[in-house]
Amino acid sequence: MKKFSVGIDIGGTNTAIGIVDEDGNVLVKGGIDTPSHGDIDKYVKEMADAVKEMAKSVKLTNPDSEILGIGLGAPNGNYYSGTIEYAPNLSFKGVVHLIDLLKAQFPEYKYLALTNDANAAALGEMIYGGAKEMKNFVMYTLGTGVGSGIIVNGDLVYGHDGFAGECGHTTLIPGGRLCGCGALGHLEAYCSAPGMKRTAFELMAKYNAADSLLADKSFKELDSKMIYDAAEKGDKVAQEVFELTGKYLGQGLADTVHHLAPEAIFLFGGPTAAGDYIFKPTIASMEQHLLPIFKNKIKILPSKLKAGDAAIVGASALVWKEMDKEA
Amino acid sequence: MKKFSVGIDIGGTNTAIGIVDEDGNVLVKGGIDTPSHGDIDKYVKEMADAVKEMAKSVKLTNPDSEILGIGLGAPNGNYYSGTIEYAPNLSFKGVVHLIDLLKAQFPEYKYLALTNDANAAALGEMIYGGAKEMKNFVMYTLGTGVGSGIIVNGDLVYGHDGFAGECGHTTLIPGGRLCGCGALGHLEAYCSAPGMKRTAFELMAKYNAADSLLADKSFKELDSKMIYDAAEKGDKVAQEVFELTGKYLGQGLADTVHHLAPEAIFLFGGPTAAGDYIFKPTIASMEQHLLPIFKNKIKILPSKLKAGDAAIVGASALVWKEMDKEA
Repeated sequence: MKKFSVGIDIGGTNTAIGIVDEDGNVLVKGGIDTPSHGDIDKYVKEMADAVKEMAKSVKLTNPDSEILGIGLGAPNGNYYSGTIEYAPNLSFKGVVHLIDLLKAQFPEYKYLALTNDANAAALGEMIYGGAKEMKNFVMYTLGTGVGSGIIVNGDLVYGHDGFAGECGHTTLIPGGRLCGCGALGHLEAYCSAPGMKRTAFELMAKYNAADSLLADKSFKELDSKMIYDAAEKGDKVAQEVFELTGKYLGQGLADTVHHLAPEAIFLFGGPTAAGDYIFKPTIASMEQHLLPIFKNKIKILPSKLKAGDAAIVGASALVWKEMDKEA
Repeated sequence: MKKFSVGIDIGGTNTAIGIVDEDGNVLVKGGIDTPSHGDIDKYVKEMADAVKEMAKSVKLTNPDSEILGIGLGAPNGNYYSGTIEYAPNLSFKGVVHLIDLLKAQFPEYKYLALTNDANAAALGEMIYGGAKEMKNFVMYTLGTGVGSGIIVNGDLVYGHDGFAGECGHTTLIPGGRLCGCGALGHLEAYCSAPGMKRTAFELMAKYNAADSLLADKSFKELDSKMIYDAAEKGDKVAQEVFELTGKYLGQGLADTVHHLAPEAIFLFGGPTAAGDYIFKPTIASMEQHLLPIFKNKIKILPSKLKAGDAAIVGASALVWKEMDKEA
């Protein structure tokens, strides 16, 4: 009998849902709006209906199959309690007992589990991706923000309260850029896609760079893809954005190595598509900050999760991990 | 039958040895010189003779007792391989297979294990000290350097290579003070006892503070105890040293919280004897750097290990942990 799991990724505006096999292939996927109305019961009902519809279609093509459970990635998702707690980008206020609500909809599913999206991505990397043989590694997800997930001895680190792995909010530059969280100088303010844009604007200001290929873009318009395209065309400002982003990120990765001594750190997300532009300066900067005992030892690798499916696939990995824990 | 373990702490100049009961009481202790001759076989023989002598005396007063093993704390001590690797402050070159050498001397002991001193201190805190009920916490040891040990789900984090928990070498100030390891701006260069001295000298320079109680001490003379005494007497420079040290340390602790979400961080070592002088600004600074989800949640606590015995006691904790793993 084939085994499948459901992966659900709850974002600020969209909730992606898919059914995934044991190799990380997505059989069917779809989505619903993440509501702005704050009515969690209505939202869970919509979510459950969508899952049931997908499950039906999977059953048609795979009669001899079983869905074992649902894994969810959500901002401020707490694995221990199965709750979403005070998520700044969601309309649900306070503490939402999402797993309890879903259990009521799916009494037949054995495993339901919730964490944040970056933790889910780390599990996805271990179960389906480039970390299958690894027991100690870290995942950094670079996007609108910077998330991270930490694996120690083959298990995700949830910490005392369920919220471990917020490496995007370590301090890189004391008193530096304002972070979305309100603090100053956090890694996320430098190494996220918007952070790269901020670096580009700083550099254009510094060099009075009216001749840069980025100089005709407004602050609202500019994105990390444009910076990459300009770098490819030889634009000095754009190239220096990658140099600096790598310098910042490498400093942060070294801090992570000094905490955890992982075998590898995986990088995931839009900015990593730039390949050597981002990986080379990141690795050089990390090495420069490391104790001799760690030098030339820690692999910095691109994630092997497929960009489009990663959120669903990562979330679905929670189910196999729960199954594995029980065995 | 009473059970005892041997704790050995290998420092740059002295090797402390003691026999410890299950409550962390030291029954007998002593020490040998850590040799500068680099002859590991001779050193292990001396160490073994000292242990055997102590074991004999313990057996006399506790005939119905058993020594279960030896735990060792040593710079660059690798738990996985039982080796000391390229320790900068020891005369033994390259990789020294200490556990293998000791096993040959003590075939009757069930458990022999090695890690670095800060990791051992973290285990000591969990087994004998203030973290008995905790599963997720971190230990920072402030002394000549700054070490750390990380406990996740009740186990010490050794990382991929055995060397995890080097939080003293996270970067606080990019391009800042030269660290003993050769990198710039590491936490150890600010929050160790010598780091506090460096801050005092910076402040005397800044304020041209000839009236400071610290102004008649040379760079070689000044130590953290003198800074504490001066602060107690109302010396403004000395008080600001604690304010700044706390500010630096709190920034680093916040980085650790963002990685690991521990229940508590324990502080151990000379500078922590200053109590509120160091704890208050450290906590204030940490809180300022934390994500809202972590604020007012993480305890910063003084270690409950007795200062004089902590190194021996921490090392001895490795033995009970090994026993526990086997059970």
